[in-house]
Amino acid sequence: MDERVREHAEVLVDWSARVDPGDHVVVSVAEDTHELGVAVAEALGERGAAVTTLYGSDEMNRAYLQGATSRSKEGEVGEESDEDAGGDDPAASVPEFPDPVVDRALFEAADVYLRLGGGRNTAATADVPRETRRAHARSRQEVRERRMDTDWVSTVHPTRSLAQQAGMAYEEYREFVYDAVLRDWEALAEEMAEMKRILDAGEEVRIHTEREDAPDTDLTMSIAGRTAVNSAASVAYDSHNLPSGEVFTAPYDTEGEVFFDVPMTIDATRVGNVHLVFEDGEVADFAAETGEDALASVLETDPGARRLGELGIGMNRGIDRFTDSILFDEKMGDTVHLAVGRAYDACLPDGESGNESAVHVDMISDVSTGSVMAVDGEVVQRDGTFRWEDGFER
Amino acid sequence: MDERVREHAEVLVDWSARVDPGDHVVVSVAEDTHELGVAVAEALGERGAAVTTLYGSDEMNRAYLQGATSRSKEGEVGEESDEDAGGDDPAASVPEFPDPVVDRALFEAADVYLRLGGGRNTAATADVPRETRRAHARSRQEVRERRMDTDWVSTVHPTRSLAQQAGMAYEEYREFVYDAVLRDWEALAEEMAEMKRILDAGEEVRIHTEREDAPDTDLTMSIAGRTAVNSAASVAYDSHNLPSGEVFTAPYDTEGEVFFDVPMTIDATRVGNVHLVFEDGEVADFAAETGEDALASVLETDPGARRLGELGIGMNRGIDRFTDSILFDEKMGDTVHLAVGRAYDACLPDGESGNESAVHVDMISDVSTGSVMAVDGEVVQRDGTFRWEDGFER
Repeated sequence: MDERVREHAEVLVDWSARVDPGDHVVVSVAEDTHELGVAVAEALGERGAAVTTLYGSDEMNRAYLQGATSRSKEGEVGEESDEDAGGDDPAASVPEFPDPVVDRALFEAADVYLRLGGGRNTAATADVPRETRRAHARSRQEVRERRMDTDWVSTVHPTRSLAQQAGMAYEEYREFVYDAVLRDWEALAEEMAEMKRILDAGEEVRIHTEREDAPDTDLTMSIAGRTAVNSAASVAYDSHNLPSGEVFTAPYDTEGEVFFDVPMTIDATRVGNVHLVFEDGEVADFAAETGEDALASVLETDPGARRLGELGIGMNRGIDRFTDSILFDEKMGDTVHLAVGRAYDACLPDGESGNESAVHVDMISDVSTGSVMAVDGEVVQRDGTFRWEDGFER
Repeated sequence: MDERVREHAEVLVDWSARVDPGDHVVVSVAEDTHELGVAVAEALGERGAAVTTLYGSDEMNRAYLQGATSRSKEGEVGEESDEDAGGDDPAASVPEFPDPVVDRALFEAADVYLRLGGGRNTAATADVPRETRRAHARSRQEVRERRMDTDWVSTVHPTRSLAQQAGMAYEEYREFVYDAVLRDWEALAEEMAEMKRILDAGEEVRIHTEREDAPDTDLTMSIAGRTAVNSAASVAYDSHNLPSGEVFTAPYDTEGEVFFDVPMTIDATRVGNVHLVFEDGEVADFAAETGEDALASVLETDPGARRLGELGIGMNRGIDRFTDSILFDEKMGDTVHLAVGRAYDACLPDGESGNESAVHVDMISDVSTGSVMAVDGEVVQRDGTFRWEDGFER
C-alpha cells in the first residue's frame, strides 16, 4: 500500500475525527475507495474503536432509485387501476419510500461517521428522475440529521473518476489530493486562528481587485457581530471536510460589484466568469459568460438566494489548482469565495438567524494578483500574501 | 448486465427472502460482488423495500483485526507497563473489542438480511491470529443472534476467487453457479417434500454402497421422532442458503461403517477418503487417506463430535460437480452427506435437545453408482435415482 494512503487514514481518524478507544465508527466506502477503506479499518482497529462499514455505491443507489421509479409507474401492486395509470401524470409516478428505520437506528448508535468519497463515474446517477431523487431525499431527512449529530468527516480517495473530473492524469491527481490532505494541520489551524481573530474583531470587509484581464471587484460587506469559523479539517474546530483550510463568516449589507473568474458547475451546468452587482445587500444585476441560465435559476430560488450567506478565505496552499470540486476549490490558497444563499448557524450570535435560503452556492475568485482585502480599512491580504507572512506589503 | 445476474437477484429477493413492500432489508456486498449488488438494489426498489448496504470486505476485516492485534501487543494507551509487556505472554496480546452497538441496532431494526458472498481472495484473512479471530467472534455473539432473527439468506456471486477455489475457469464457474441457483424452485420444493414425508414417517435409514474402487458403506441410523427439513432455498422453508436443495434430519444410534469419497477442507487442511466405523452410536474407529490429523482434531473436540448430527440428501441436480464449497457440495444431486457434531433444532421435537457439540463437520459420499438408501427396509433411492423418478429399479 502507498504510504500516503495510510497517512491519509491516520489524519482522518486522529486529526479530523478524533476517534477515541471504544468509539462506534460508521465508515462509508464508495466504489473504488477500497484501499483507503483498508487503511482506515486498520487505524480504527489500532485505536480500539468499533467499526461498521457501509457500501456507498452510486451504481447501487441509482439501481434502487430506478427500481422504485419503475414500481411507481406501474402503480402499487394489488391496487386497482388502469394498466396505464400514472403513465401520463408525473405526480402519480413519484415513488414513496419506506421510513428508513435501519439507517436511523444505525446513526443514532454511532459516535463517528467517516465518508470516503470517490466512485467510478461522477455521473453515475445522472438518469434518475429529479422527482424520485427529491422524494428519496425527503424520506431521509431524519437520517441526515442523526448523521450530522455524529462527529462526521467527509473525505475523498483519489479515484480515476475524480481525476477525470479534474482533467488530470491519475498519478498527477493522487499527488494533488495528498498535497491537499497531508498538511501540517496544527500549524495551519494556528495561522487560520489569526485570520479568525481579525474577522471576529472586525466590522467591515472590503475586497478590491484590479487586473487587466478581468472586470474589477470592489465589494464591501458588514461582518459586525458575526463569528468566523476556523475550518481546520477537524471536528474539534467544527470542521467536517478533509481537506479543509478556510476561514469563513456570514456577511451582510453587501455593496458593490464582484467578478468570479473560477469556473464552477451548478446543477450539471458549467458556469464561468460570473459578475454580480450588489445594492442594499442584494444582487441587483448579474451576468455570466457561460451558464447564465443556471445562475439565474439559483438567484430566483427565494429572496435569500440574492443575498450573501458566506465569505470564505481559502488558506490551504497544498491546493494549487482548480479541479471542479468544491471540496478542494474553495480551500485553495490565494482565493476568496462568496456564497449566495443560506448562512451557517456557527457564524451567527446564539438564537439569531442569518440569511435563510434553500440554496447555498459558492463562487470563487483568484486573489493572487492585483488584489487587496482590508478589514476596517487595514490591509490583511495583498496579492494572496497575508500580513503575518514574509513578503507582505502594507 | 448478464441477464442471469438479474434473475439471480430476483430469485434471492422473491423466492428466497420473500421481500414485501415496506420491508427493511440489509444487504452485505462482498468485494467483487458489486454487479449482483446492483441487481439486488434494483429488485428491492421495484418491491418497495428500504435498503441499507454493508460492505462485507474481507480485506477491511483483516486490516481491522490486525490493527486490533497490534494495539493489544503494545498494551493499552496510557497504561504503565514495560515496553515489551505482552510481547511474550500470548494471553496479554488478545485484543478486547468494544460492544458492537451499531451492528446490533442495525440488525434489530432489519426485517431481512441478504449476504452476497464472493470476495477477491478466499485466504484474505489467513494471517489473523486465531485468538484475535475468536475474541472478535465472541464480542459479536449477540449481533449474530439478532441477524439470525431476521429473514436472512446467504448466497454467492461467482467471482474469480471462487472460480479459482473450485479449480474452474471464470466463465465455466459462472455457468456452474447459475445452473445451481436458477432452478425451478417450486418444483424442486415439491419433490423434496416427498423425501421429507418419507423421512418423517420412517424409523430407520440404511445406506449401503458397494463399489469396486472404494471401501463399502453399510450404515444404519435411527430417525424415529425426528423431523426432516425441506431445504428449498427459501425462508418460507426455514432454508437460508441460495442455492440449496437438500433434505436433512438428525439421526442417532448410528451403527456400521461409511466411506466418504468427496474431498473436503477442514481448518484449512485438505481431508480425503475418510472412513468411519460407528459402534453404539459413536465413532469407534476412523481413518483418512489425507489430512487424518485434522479429522482426529474434530472428533476429539467433545463427546458430541463423535456422534452424527445430520443426515442430508442432496437433491439439486443443477450442481454437477464438487467445488470445495459446502454451500454447493452438500446440495449436489446423487450425494448424501453426514455431519459429526451438533444437530439442528428444527429436526428435534419441541424442547428436546439433540446431539450437542461445538463442531458440525459435513462429509459427503457419491451415491450415483452401486448405492442403495432404504427407509424401514423399503428402497427410496438406488444409484442416485429416487423411487418417484423414471428409471427407478426397486
